[in-house]
Amino acid sequence: MTKLSMHAISAPVFVRMLKNLSSMLSKAEQQAKAKGYDPAILLGARLAPDMLPLTRQVQIATDHAKGAMARLAGHTAEAIEDTETSFAQLQSRIQKVINIVEGYKEEQLVGSESREITIKLPGTELKFDGLTYLNGFAMGNFYFHVTTAYAILRHNGVDLGKRDFLMS
Amino acid sequence: MTKLSMHAISAPVFVRMLKNLSSMLSKAEQQAKAKGYDPAILLGARLAPDMLPLTRQVQIATDHAKGAMARLAGHTAEAIEDTETSFAQLQSRIQKVINIVEGYKEEQLVGSESREITIKLPGTELKFDGLTYLNGFAMGNFYFHVTTAYAILRHNGVDLGKRDFLMS
Repeated sequence: MTKLSMHAISAPVFVRMLKNLSSMLSKAEQQAKAKGYDPAILLGARLAPDMLPLTRQVQIATDHAKGAMARLAGHTAEAIEDTETSFAQLQSRIQKVINIVEGYKEEQLVGSESREITIKLPGTELKFDGLTYLNGFAMGNFYFHVTTAYAILRHNGVDLGKRDFLMS
Repeated sequence: MTKLSMHAISAPVFVRMLKNLSSMLSKAEQQAKAKGYDPAILLGARLAPDMLPLTRQVQIATDHAKGAMARLAGHTAEAIEDTETSFAQLQSRIQKVINIVEGYKEEQLVGSESREITIKLPGTELKFDGLTYLNGFAMGNFYFHVTTAYAILRHNGVDLGKRDFLMS
């Protein structure tokens, strides 16, 4: 019997998509090397001058995953400095966040659909219940940045398909 | 008291994001006109030669929204032909799908987390329980295509921000 819970709609989604993001970055790095260009060029690639580059997409996606789990559990999210400058460092960050997400147990999120969650933004605050925060803010942000990472890679000629994005 | 349910994690997400997609397309059309180019040029825009153009991103996003609601409720999804060639027609499609999604009531999805869902793909079938289908297939696909639509517009100079994508 499949059980609907706050944990079931958060942790497995983050973990699967972070693993897929990790695989996509591995493929991108390998393909760059095979084509004879520096993989780090991809890390600075963007879809528009006023959009964030690949490295930031990965950093922000991971932040939403660990942020969501922590907030739903009533913890303070572990801070990770945004200092990555290589594929290897981004892979470490993703693995670290997968470990963090996997560390949260089902019971830590029981009742979190009603937990009040406050997100501080420059000059304003967003207040949500836990369910609306997860569904209406954290998950949308998370998918936004993972998809944008995929789009940056595809736009730069990396050979990926939606299967890489979606399927584990 | 916020209630976690299959309906709560599907319909409101689809509706909010479809409304945001509609607003983003309106802004794109208006900005194209203001800049003096044919908005229809955006409909054929892609991020890579082997990625789908904007029109298809909108069609597929809407298909996943109505498909998910129907499958979770045990219905056959209403077919919509992929014939749109203008912003106005895409707006009609989005509105039609919003109406379909809004037509599903909470009680129609009760227990759907355990419903067996089969997705037929060319040469294969995917079998899921309803929760895994929604979380691991339909929602990921939906966000993928809405985000890609956003990315195509941004890449083509349309002035949008993540607030347009995420906030209603």
